[in-house]
Amino acid sequence: MTDTRTKPMDAKRLQDILLISPFHRWLGLRIVSQSGDSLELEMPWRDEIVSNPAIGAAHGGILSALVDLTGLYAVLAAGGVAKATVDLRVDFHRAATEGPLRAIGCPIKMGRTLSIADTQILSADGRLLASGRGAYVSG
Amino acid sequence: MTDTRTKPMDAKRLQDILLISPFHRWLGLRIVSQSGDSLELEMPWRDEIVSNPAIGAAHGGILSALVDLTGLYAVLAAGGVAKATVDLRVDFHRAATEGPLRAIGCPIKMGRTLSIADTQILSADGRLLASGRGAYVSG
Amino acid sequence: MTDTRTKPMDAKRLQDILLISPFHRWLGLRIVSQSGDSLELEMPWRDEIVSNPAIGAAHGGILSALVDLTGLYAVLAAGGVAKATVDLRVDFHRAATEGPLRAIGCPIKMGRTLSIADTQILSADGRLLASGRGAYVSG
Amino acid sequence: MTDTRTKPMDAKRLQDILLISPFHRWLGLRIVSQSGDSLELEMPWRDEIVSNPAIGAAHGGILSALVDLTGLYAVLAAGGVAKATVDLRVDFHRAATEGPLRAIGCPIKMGRTLSIADTQILSADGRLLASGRGAYVSG
Repeated sequence: MTDTRTKPMDAKRLQDILLISPFHRWLGLRIVSQSGDSLELEMPWRDEIVSNPAIGAAHGGILSALVDLTGLYAVLAAGGVAKATVDLRVDFHRAATEGPLRAIGCPIKMGRTLSIADTQILSADGRLLASGRGAYVSG
Repeated sequence: MTDTRTKPMDAKRLQDILLISPFHRWLGLRIVSQSGDSLELEMPWRDEIVSNPAIGAAHGGILSALVDLTGLYAVLAAGGVAKATVDLRVDFHRAATEGPLRAIGCPIKMGRTLSIADTQILSADGRLLASGRGAYVSG
Repeated sequence: MTDTRTKPMDAKRLQDILLISPFHRWLGLRIVSQSGDSLELEMPWRDEIVSNPAIGAAHGGILSALVDLTGLYAVLAAGGVAKATVDLRVDFHRAATEGPLRAIGCPIKMGRTLSIADTQILSADGRLLASGRGAYVSG
Repeated sequence: MTDTRTKPMDAKRLQDILLISPFHRWLGLRIVSQSGDSLELEMPWRDEIVSNPAIGAAHGGILSALVDLTGLYAVLAAGGVAKATVDLRVDFHRAATEGPLRAIGCPIKMGRTLSIADTQILSADGRLLASGRGAYVSG
């Protein structure tokens, strides 16, 4: 697998593609910043994402969705091709109890067949809540 | 880690606990069957879960949420303790394009500190859409 | 990804390919049984594989190697194509303190681009020591 | 999980502990540098680690072992507690065809129960060959 990073994708176009997905619109995603090296997204809180109402923590599936999609769009932002996620791994470090949540994705390997990106999920005050990695297929 | 499987949890109580979570209610989860060896859940389709509207495929984050929660509740159903997910790994095999989705979780290791469960996500006609594993902490 | 399982590989040929690898010869691997659904390998103990001499436990890297290679050869045994491992995930359940170790690999998804196989590592008396999954690329 | 990073471990003591393991001695590991933030190890080539003799590539199991152990010792180097690996995930980016190999591990989360560390495996000329993550339990 050789590096296939070409030119970064235009910000407006990335935002448009991101919000084609009804689930991304439901999550209320917004692009904060992007470059060939990283993509930062922001997601507001919404009450339906809560897993444990006793502590008001966001569901791990929501954090996993953020890791998944931020990594994929980080590959696109860097000029790579990522048609679908083939696998995803997420570690949950701390309960996410309020929004907005920040997700920062970084491509680790841009490949011809497969690209890999790491994503960190942070609280508004910068604490690491979850982190993980997706493998994205180009064809 | 020694096996700490005790007696399976009562079905009514499991359903009550499952639906305490607002996100689980949003997903519309329903327990199909449960035993000490496996737990089967069903999730109806809803338009907000779509990732790619061109093919109408469910978002990988939704499938990940199903793998995460089904494994955790499979550990509970088997009489184990699972307070939170520590990590999650999911492989996406085929696009999920219609509901209901079925999720079948099986405990692999019931430990004092950590339990592991595997979950498969199937289409209504029994095709394997995604599969994965969660590690759940007891304290 | 459509299923590309063709006809299972001949046992003699599988053994020959398995032992082309100097590392596999160092591990002393032997095929116990094979079919389109599973492959069982056996590995004798050797003192160099010990991680913690206080309890005489095998190194996690050795168990990981077994998960990796058994899954890949399970795909080959089932008639699939697996050129290289793209990623590997292993859970360690119990210390492996004596040999021989048994590794049982099962293909989960045979794909055109990517195949997935699960492997369990068992002690001689059948206790689950480690389990995991590899993703194998065909080209 | 709160951060439990205390004071970094003494270099001589870390090297002594690392080489208690017969498998680590077989691998020929050497500590290049260490701090509370990262640990760098070096591993010489040896012919027994080859998987595919046609291209002379190191076995994925060897790279996995390096990811596993470097992460665990990076947690120790940072003053954390890591008794055993509970799970390991590795991505293979490029064939490793000559030595020495360099492994750089960084703690991501130092927890009371569980610590997480990321490790990168690099060729002598600095190319990323593999990368991954281990979860290490403290008790």
